[in-house]
Amino acid sequence: MLEVGGETLVLTHDVLVEGVHVLPNSNPADIAWKLVAVNLSDLASKGAEPVGILLGHMLGDGDARFIEGLREVLAAYDVPLLGGDTVKGSTQRSWGVTALGRATHVPVPSRSGAQVGDGVFVTGALGAAMLGHAALTGGPRADTAAYLRPIPLLAEGRALAPLVTAMMDVSDGLLLDAWRLGTASGVTLDLESASIPVADEARRGECLRWGDDYQLLFTAPADTPLPLAASLIGTVAPPGNGPLRLDGQLLSFDDGLGYTHG
Amino acid sequence: MLEVGGETLVLTHDVLVEGVHVLPNSNPADIAWKLVAVNLSDLASKGAEPVGILLGHMLGDGDARFIEGLREVLAAYDVPLLGGDTVKGSTQRSWGVTALGRATHVPVPSRSGAQVGDGVFVTGALGAAMLGHAALTGGPRADTAAYLRPIPLLAEGRALAPLVTAMMDVSDGLLLDAWRLGTASGVTLDLESASIPVADEARRGECLRWGDDYQLLFTAPADTPLPLAASLIGTVAPPGNGPLRLDGQLLSFDDGLGYTHG
Repeated sequence: MLEVGGETLVLTHDVLVEGVHVLPNSNPADIAWKLVAVNLSDLASKGAEPVGILLGHMLGDGDARFIEGLREVLAAYDVPLLGGDTVKGSTQRSWGVTALGRATHVPVPSRSGAQVGDGVFVTGALGAAMLGHAALTGGPRADTAAYLRPIPLLAEGRALAPLVTAMMDVSDGLLLDAWRLGTASGVTLDLESASIPVADEARRGECLRWGDDYQLLFTAPADTPLPLAASLIGTVAPPGNGPLRLDGQLLSFDDGLGYTHG
Repeated sequence: MLEVGGETLVLTHDVLVEGVHVLPNSNPADIAWKLVAVNLSDLASKGAEPVGILLGHMLGDGDARFIEGLREVLAAYDVPLLGGDTVKGSTQRSWGVTALGRATHVPVPSRSGAQVGDGVFVTGALGAAMLGHAALTGGPRADTAAYLRPIPLLAEGRALAPLVTAMMDVSDGLLLDAWRLGTASGVTLDLESASIPVADEARRGECLRWGDDYQLLFTAPADTPLPLAASLIGTVAPPGNGPLRLDGQLLSFDDGLGYTHG
């Protein structure tokens, strides 16, 4: 975040790497969409209104389609391309986006403000992206757009920003991200598994550990009237022996809570 | 550029790729330095004061030294790291930096303002980075820092911003960048070879075509009192048959004017 002339700018930077975050033989238009959408989702979780992006693009096959996807996502969210760099790469491509947003509410929501007694909420259901990914890799048919073309919850984030005590987007798995929020806030999140909406009941455990859904996870006083549909999935407890309990059981970072980078 | 709360933000994004912009077996500290310095040089050419950077870093060998170089360059120019992303990569690493600066003079200098009758100026001598690169690849001894640790001319850019009609940094070779400035301004730059300072007289032609020096190329009324040492290397003429003449001879983009990406 950056204070400029009385405004608060929110800045995010995310990189996608071929073979790591992007399936082989992906449609370059989908890569472009996801690259921008995940950055806009970061802005959404801060209640920020996008003002533009910069793109670092590694040239290669399918660039025309990449540009098509880029145009689509920028038009969908009315975001200008402010600048960037194109470079040659040979073996493993990567793409980086910096997104800039204007805070619509100060203080800007962060991961660290959860208060003991708050409710823990999440928008939507978890695991839709997982089912989409499975469908793309030989599994049963499912909505692949949930994985390929995530939707940044910009309006939702702006509506929630004045009401929440902490907020983040679920990019790496609900449990892992809840663990991070609990850690940053110095509290224990007490989650109740059965109250967490999932896209596939038979794979509930996996749905809670898969990322890419870009739903919003937030804490707020439990009686806060919310301006949108969200599920109450737990409560904020005083710091115990760890930042996260699921159905009363303490989880550890080593339990495979979600997708960890690097 | 971006108007925020009455201020003008200048944004740059540059990517370095292993095997393309970075020599094999480079010291990671030097990579970090150059990555940040080239972005700060972009800000310098706009007369902007840096306010921070975001870094997209692909993890790998030598990360401790990378961080050391990053700390050095950020401390040298008093620039905070505002955020970023770290990702795993396997075969070919790349690094991206977004730099944000605050314009100190509006209108912000661009490539497109050169006026017929202006003088064309450049700071410093061209080719020092070329000699440094040669020394690193088996050539005669030379100052390798000129190649490895370029110096963004931030104070110089700020001092020049109110005086120039057009300005850019010389990243890809003097002739190529002059060609771009002439094109953007819709004029012809008439350069005189003998008046252009070079680091190696015997290799004058190459010095004019090698990049990485990050000197400032600018145009201004020829009688402007300059606040720093710069060489008058030509004049701005009405648009002729192309944007650039050297010693009266029209140069074309296909003449190998400098380093072209992608």
